[in-house]
Amino acid sequence: MRYGYEIQLVSRPLGRPTADNFRLARVSVPDPGPDQLLVRNTVLSVDPYMRGRMDDIPSYTPPFALDQPLEGGAVGEVVASESALFKPGDFVLHQLGWRKFSLVTAADARLVDVAVAPDSAYLGVLGMPGLTAYTGLLDVAAMKPGDVVFVSAAAGAVGSLAGQIARLRGAARVVGSAGSAAKVAWLRELGFDAAFDYHAGPLRRSLRAAAPDGIDVYFDNVGGDQLEVAISAMRPHGRVAMCGAIAAYNAIQPVPGPRNLVSAIGKRLTLRGFLVNDHASRRDTFLAEMGAWLRSGDITYRETVVDGLAAAPEAFLGLLNGENIGKMIVRLGGRVDGRAPAPESPHHPEDA
Amino acid sequence: MRYGYEIQLVSRPLGRPTADNFRLARVSVPDPGPDQLLVRNTVLSVDPYMRGRMDDIPSYTPPFALDQPLEGGAVGEVVASESALFKPGDFVLHQLGWRKFSLVTAADARLVDVAVAPDSAYLGVLGMPGLTAYTGLLDVAAMKPGDVVFVSAAAGAVGSLAGQIARLRGAARVVGSAGSAAKVAWLRELGFDAAFDYHAGPLRRSLRAAAPDGIDVYFDNVGGDQLEVAISAMRPHGRVAMCGAIAAYNAIQPVPGPRNLVSAIGKRLTLRGFLVNDHASRRDTFLAEMGAWLRSGDITYRETVVDGLAAAPEAFLGLLNGENIGKMIVRLGGRVDGRAPAPESPHHPEDA
Repeated sequence: MRYGYEIQLVSRPLGRPTADNFRLARVSVPDPGPDQLLVRNTVLSVDPYMRGRMDDIPSYTPPFALDQPLEGGAVGEVVASESALFKPGDFVLHQLGWRKFSLVTAADARLVDVAVAPDSAYLGVLGMPGLTAYTGLLDVAAMKPGDVVFVSAAAGAVGSLAGQIARLRGAARVVGSAGSAAKVAWLRELGFDAAFDYHAGPLRRSLRAAAPDGIDVYFDNVGGDQLEVAISAMRPHGRVAMCGAIAAYNAIQPVPGPRNLVSAIGKRLTLRGFLVNDHASRRDTFLAEMGAWLRSGDITYRETVVDGLAAAPEAFLGLLNGENIGKMIVRLGGRVDGRAPAPESPHHPEDA
Repeated sequence: MRYGYEIQLVSRPLGRPTADNFRLARVSVPDPGPDQLLVRNTVLSVDPYMRGRMDDIPSYTPPFALDQPLEGGAVGEVVASESALFKPGDFVLHQLGWRKFSLVTAADARLVDVAVAPDSAYLGVLGMPGLTAYTGLLDVAAMKPGDVVFVSAAAGAVGSLAGQIARLRGAARVVGSAGSAAKVAWLRELGFDAAFDYHAGPLRRSLRAAAPDGIDVYFDNVGGDQLEVAISAMRPHGRVAMCGAIAAYNAIQPVPGPRNLVSAIGKRLTLRGFLVNDHASRRDTFLAEMGAWLRSGDITYRETVVDGLAAAPEAFLGLLNGENIGKMIVRLGGRVDGRAPAPESPHHPEDA
């Protein structure tokens, strides 16, 4: 019998989660049954949407169960396979993260090529956050060349890509907001025309200075005050892609809505919420275009990497506090990429 | 020299308008110049959007000027023409209402046939409110057969048509809210599947009783609390056509936005504000379909008629108070329709 570790949810957070809501547990790992794979994960994703699944309320995905492992995107190496589709040594992307070993149904795994891009890229720029940025900007907000685009949480995994895609697709001006001077500096490196720290002054004034002629598209990752000032700055026929509302995720009381929503009538604004899962049919187009941008160096990305499964809750809490620049990743064992494949390490101390 | 009367704006309302904001003034009426018509109006429209133009704030239409006549839709008879396009005796629709005689540029007038429908119909069911209902429901909210549709202010000019169009276009269920028992009773006559008085109990409970399985489309004429409960009742991929926000028109302080707007993400909702002027290209299609529904009796309409130009401010204030059922109309002189054409009455006492 093989043993592994996993992170379980032991209590539902009321408001902001704390380390006490999570537990590192040692569990037995069964052998794969028919059409199953046993995957030793190398990288795990922590994402803001996971906060919603920690509440016991009806939503688009069922809540996480108490005393069970959390779930989320992960990439790992197949160590045993009872499926003809995968063999040991393959790397796969799947949705049973937050644990060292995952028993994955073959139909729920997707092969990834770690010679083309590092394992973690499939959780970020080439994965869910990348597709979110691409479809949110181009499909949901219907960005056109010449638009002025504003992105909040622009130094995050999704926002940093949305802003770069806007630039590459011909936006007249790309503006980002973020939560620290270091993040703002990075946004300028990425080619944002203007960026501001949302703590650094009245939001309305900051946005007006960054986009004096108003905005056409707002890629909303935060909701709250930034949504309100974006609506005020919108030009006629402007569009909001509502991707996230991190300002509300830990709220105990309902968060006030934008007091200027009525102006959406006169300005003919469209606000549209979306989930990336509805846009899976765009994955091939996205991968082709994003792959080319990565190869040409037109798009760059960063990761904030936390080491070890035990630190995964801390990584998640840090994410909610905005401590990441770019994609927040939890790495288990060594880095895996085309240049430096991870050695096979069946006796890694974390495994058992 | 001919004289006529007009309603002028003498002060800008702070909050709810009062009679003191308006003045009936006797003015001289010039003869038409080249390409102009002199129109003796028979019916005037008062509409909620006019409230916005009484404020001196930038909007999609310029504010009304102080000490000048108000403007708005009107139908009247051409009494003098310096345009080859129109001759005396023609009836035209134009936008220089709130006065007995309008001097209209020919390009801004549209011929209407009062043998086909009464003059007032061109201000309602066959006019701007009709096109608003038609395009808001079918284009902006993209209503499909099988949708559950909720309409607020459903006994108003626009709402009563939107609900009937939804029924005729195959909605699974049409629900309306209104402000009195008499209005609710009329909605049932119109074929609404359910209707409720928004004063009559908690909105959330009323809407749930009327649409127990939720709603797909919300045609929003009021904003405020009803928008919030509609968002709560929305099924995935629901759509809101934001047409009006009468709850906010008289507000002095910003009106709180819906506290549940964040749920638009998980439910993938679309909220879209619109103005009917952007949808003028749909007029021919609209008139063909609406004309057929009127002839077949599938759509019926009502008017609340106020007599005399001097009562126009009162009609407008009554509209904001919800005193109308169906379209609020101000009639000047006798009724004009195909059955009983108004006699030519150049010496009507109101004229001079």
